[in-house]
Amino acid sequence: MSAELEFYFDFSSPYAYFAATRIDALAARHDRTVRWLPVLLPAIFKVTGNVPSPMVPIKGDYILRDFERTARHHGIAYRKPEHFPILTVTPGRAMTWIAAAHGPAQAAEFARRVFSAYYTAGADIRELVVLSAIAAGLDIAPAALEAGIQSDEVKEAFRLASETALQRGVFGAPFVLADGEPFWGFDRFEQLESHLRGA
Amino acid sequence: MSAELEFYFDFSSPYAYFAATRIDALAARHDRTVRWLPVLLPAIFKVTGNVPSPMVPIKGDYILRDFERTARHHGIAYRKPEHFPILTVTPGRAMTWIAAAHGPAQAAEFARRVFSAYYTAGADIRELVVLSAIAAGLDIAPAALEAGIQSDEVKEAFRLASETALQRGVFGAPFVLADGEPFWGFDRFEQLESHLRGA
Repeated sequence: MSAELEFYFDFSSPYAYFAATRIDALAARHDRTVRWLPVLLPAIFKVTGNVPSPMVPIKGDYILRDFERTARHHGIAYRKPEHFPILTVTPGRAMTWIAAAHGPAQAAEFARRVFSAYYTAGADIRELVVLSAIAAGLDIAPAALEAGIQSDEVKEAFRLASETALQRGVFGAPFVLADGEPFWGFDRFEQLESHLRGA
Repeated sequence: MSAELEFYFDFSSPYAYFAATRIDALAARHDRTVRWLPVLLPAIFKVTGNVPSPMVPIKGDYILRDFERTARHHGIAYRKPEHFPILTVTPGRAMTWIAAAHGPAQAAEFARRVFSAYYTAGADIRELVVLSAIAAGLDIAPAALEAGIQSDEVKEAFRLASETALQRGVFGAPFVLADGEPFWGFDRFEQLESHLRGA
């Protein structure tokens, strides 16, 4: 069995970041590969009417604490970014363009570095200068990235990504589809692994 | 260390039921006891503005599937009740009265049996006849239970329970407070156990 895992995420979700640090190794243990698919959660929540957890009174305070504790529990480096939560249109478009122009492997590596820059170094990943520096580390020219982000095709493709995800049943992030079976949340990775073991 | 764990739940939450099947053994492994505290989630959600997961479009379908899968994953008997979700005012009041009249141990055992009747036998636990039968199994007279449920003191005490819980930071269920540290969800029992191990 070699069907790809579909890994949906929004850079603005710390749980998606935790998942991003583990998904490739988890997949590899079961001879699977991962397709990294950025979405924009606010676009999805607009349709479902869901309220982002950090915005719910009382729950919001708990969630911030849970981010820290969950990171510690799993041994993942994490520091709450100064700007949080943020709208991740620009990094989402950047990744969309990189996937089209440089292939999915480069795009996934870009995503890993964006997550890390945001959640370990506190970089403002909405800023073009930050994204350009990350792209440069992957031998992608800043000018090409900037043009890519601003192209209508990329804007439309990233907009469609959230719509397609929603049609596939994705209502939050991280979200993994494995052989059609849906897993929502980093805390379902144990069940995801059970599924892959049994598949 | 022998501080009690505060275990907040609503009979209408399958995740609370899963937690209820494990909380006592988990506590006992660390020489702790459990205080079973029923609340009414809709009263809490009214304050926080949270939307119950089964009511969110798309997410609702996933959650029903996740109940089944999570039960299977942990080897817990579970069958989606015909009436679901329900308003659990009557079983909540019943437990509140039993705790006052017969002590917390009887009340916890009543709660375990109510959960089991609802999630394994599909009994409609809003019905007095169902609650009376469960109480009778604990040598509690149905007439006394019925009078207890209808007393103003019990109604007020159960109403206050959700208010007090909210003041303690409880915004959902299951919710455990261990030495002041909050754990929301059955999927945080691993972190709860880590905490107890380290405390």
